[in-house]
Order: sequence, then C-alpha cells, then structure tokens
Amino acid sequence: MRIDIITCLPRLLESPFSDSILLRAQKKGLVEVCVHDLRKYSTDKHKKVDDYAYGGGAGMVMMIEPIVTCLRALQAERQYDEVIYMSPDGERFSQRMANELSMKKNLIILCGHYKGVDERVREHFVTREISIGDYVLSGGELAAAVVSDAVIRLLPGVLSDETSALTDSFQDDLVAPPVYTRPAEFEGIKVPDILLSGHEQKIEEWRFKQSVARTKNRRPDLLR
Amino acid sequence: MRIDIITCLPRLLESPFSDSILLRAQKKGLVEVCVHDLRKYSTDKHKKVDDYAYGGGAGMVMMIEPIVTCLRALQAERQYDEVIYMSPDGERFSQRMANELSMKKNLIILCGHYKGVDERVREHFVTREISIGDYVLSGGELAAAVVSDAVIRLLPGVLSDETSALTDSFQDDLVAPPVYTRPAEFEGIKVPDILLSGHEQKIEEWRFKQSVARTKNRRPDLLR
Repeated sequence: MRIDIITCLPRLLESPFSDSILLRAQKKGLVEVCVHDLRKYSTDKHKKVDDYAYGGGAGMVMMIEPIVTCLRALQAERQYDEVIYMSPDGERFSQRMANELSMKKNLIILCGHYKGVDERVREHFVTREISIGDYVLSGGELAAAVVSDAVIRLLPGVLSDETSALTDSFQDDLVAPPVYTRPAEFEGIKVPDILLSGHEQKIEEWRFKQSVARTKNRRPDLLR
Repeated sequence: MRIDIITCLPRLLESPFSDSILLRAQKKGLVEVCVHDLRKYSTDKHKKVDDYAYGGGAGMVMMIEPIVTCLRALQAERQYDEVIYMSPDGERFSQRMANELSMKKNLIILCGHYKGVDERVREHFVTREISIGDYVLSGGELAAAVVSDAVIRLLPGVLSDETSALTDSFQDDLVAPPVYTRPAEFEGIKVPDILLSGHEQKIEEWRFKQSVARTKNRRPDLLR
C-alpha cells in the first residue's frame, strides 16, 4: 500500500511516521508513506499556497493551483483509489472505514490548513471527504496521521501478532475488556483472581462478559 | 495553560508541537506542553514499561508502577484539573469538550500504547477518559496531540485573528460554509459571483444559507 500526503506543513508529519509500528511497517516494505510539500508546487515566487478568502472574513484559504498541480503530478505516476480530503464536515471516520481503506492500493490524503482549501478543489478533484471527529484542528495533518495509523496497523504483517488487532475495540462492535499486568498487587489493589487462575476458557468467558458489560455501560449505541 | 503528556514513545510527539500554531502558542507563552518519557520512571534495569497480559492473549499491557510514579512526581509540583487517559472507549471528544478543556489550567494526558494500560491505573488514578473517535490507533500519542491541538487553538491570543476560531465548524452547531480564493477562474471553474460582489451583508447571508444547507445535507444530526 502507498499513502501520499499533501500538506503545506510537512514538518508536522515527520515524527508520527518515524517510530514504533508505523516505522516498522515502512521498513518491512508493507506501506510507503510519502509526504509532499505543497509549496514545491507553487508557481508564485514566494512559494505562496494560500490567500485571502473571497468575500472577506478571517482566515486564509489554500489555493487551487498548487494543489491541482501536485495531484496531477502524482496521478501521472500511478492510479489512485481515492483522493481524500480531511475536513470536519466529511464522512465520519470509523474502524469499519479503516478496514475498508486498508484494502486499497494507493491513497492520496490532502490536508487542509487555516480555513481549508478552495471549494473548487473539493468539488472537482477530491473523491472522498473524511472527518476524524466533531472538532476543529489547526490543520488536516494530525487527522491524516490518525487515518494513516488506523489503516496501516490493519495491513497483514504490520502488527507482530496478527490476532492483536482482531481483539481491539470495535472489531466486533464491543469495546475491549480490561487488561492487567504485573505486579499482581500494587499498594493493596489486586488483579482479578480469575486472570491468575490459568483456566483459559473461564478467562475468555470473563473477558467476553466484561466487554459486553463495558459496552452496555459506556457505549450502548454499539449494541443496538 | 500547561499540558503534560505521558508516553512510552515521546519521539512520536516531537513534530506536532514544533511548527505552526502550536509552536507559536508555546513561544508566546500561552501554553506549555511537556512530554514525559515513561521509561524514565521505570525501576526496571531494562527500563521496561510494559509486560504480558495476565490471563494470556495477544498484545502487551503498560505497567501500573512507572505510570503512578510519573503521575505522583507531576502532582507533587502542581495541582492538576484532570488526569486524562486516551482510550477508544472513553467519552467522545467534541468541540464542546475542547471549549471546556480550554478553560482548565493544568492537564495531564496519559497515552496508552499496545493493548493499553493496566486497568488499575484507569480505576484509581485517571479522572477522565477521552476518545477522539470510534477507531483504534497504535497508541494514544496521536490522540493526545489531536486533543491538545483542538484545545490550544482556542486559547485567547493563539490564533492571530480571534474571530477565526468562532467561524469554524461546530461552534454554532453548523458546519462551515465553502471558501474560495484567487484566481476567480481556474480552468473555467468560477468562484460564485456573490463573493466578488462586495455586498458584505449579502455575502454574510449567502454564507449562512450555505452553512445551513451543507449541515442539512451532511450532518442533519447537528440540527436536531
């Protein structure tokens, strides 16, 4: 899988891909993440990529020209499944959507910044708009990193133990059960006896019951 | 405001705070963001912070001891309003919650990684659990960066033009209207005439209508 991220602030995206699971996935050749600096596609002598909004008002708007030039340069190289724009009014990102996107081959993710991109980019060049939640960020960079992380960890071979992702929250519309590790007692607070019992089947039953109870309590909407 | 982020992978959090709005906010002294490496609080000679889950199963669990040692070291220095744990089964993060958190003075954000933290940390030491959405990430680091970004940009003086945040999506339960910038025509695709008209009041009316129409179309749930 290949993910191309287009941004006017590439430095924001340096570290999320340079450690842990996302770094290992790239080193293993399971995913290629390419961050593109939009300023390189600006024809302006000051490498400007944003300008004032038509009609006035606060906040800058990202210009259509550098974005389209960058998109066309990428699309000349390979076929992309989606040109995704990160926006708070996009389709809500979910584990289901992460599963779906993890089946794709090539994705472009365009990060808005400031007030967002010129609407004509969204109307004519973007194929899908995604929101990671009902809140506003400084830009789409963190949102692009969130989507990439959720998708990449699902690629076969990325997690060292493949069963690990399958027992995560949401994969079966339940939230995960509580987990415990050593020591068995910390300042008088103990790990539930059942987990120390060694009865594999009873432990699985306990975990399932805990998942259901926790889902009922915290996220009853998932059970409907 | 001060935000202390506790993580076993501090490098993941380097770049999101080193550029653009979040960097400027720190330079202006409006917020202090301190990232703490959990490994420094491990008493293990290998600086271990995670261990196998009691009861078996895939994935590592973050140990209670280094976390509590770190929390207590911080809490000895100052009073914290919340000890937040980022978890997919937490309370759903929203613009409203961002507004609320932006009023606080000192926040601790604990990032889980792998399968999460020992449940005893959540039961006895965490005051609030927050989820940025219904999807699973490699760890809480990106989620902590998302919450910090959404909160910090609301602090007075952080955005160069204070009206900028007030016209964002969700602040009035509407998504933002479309925005346009130069050129007025790109490959035959034009900016709406009204925005070039100079009629300030008509432009405001058009934007409001666009916001309402777009909210009805994309997010009817916000209007209920």
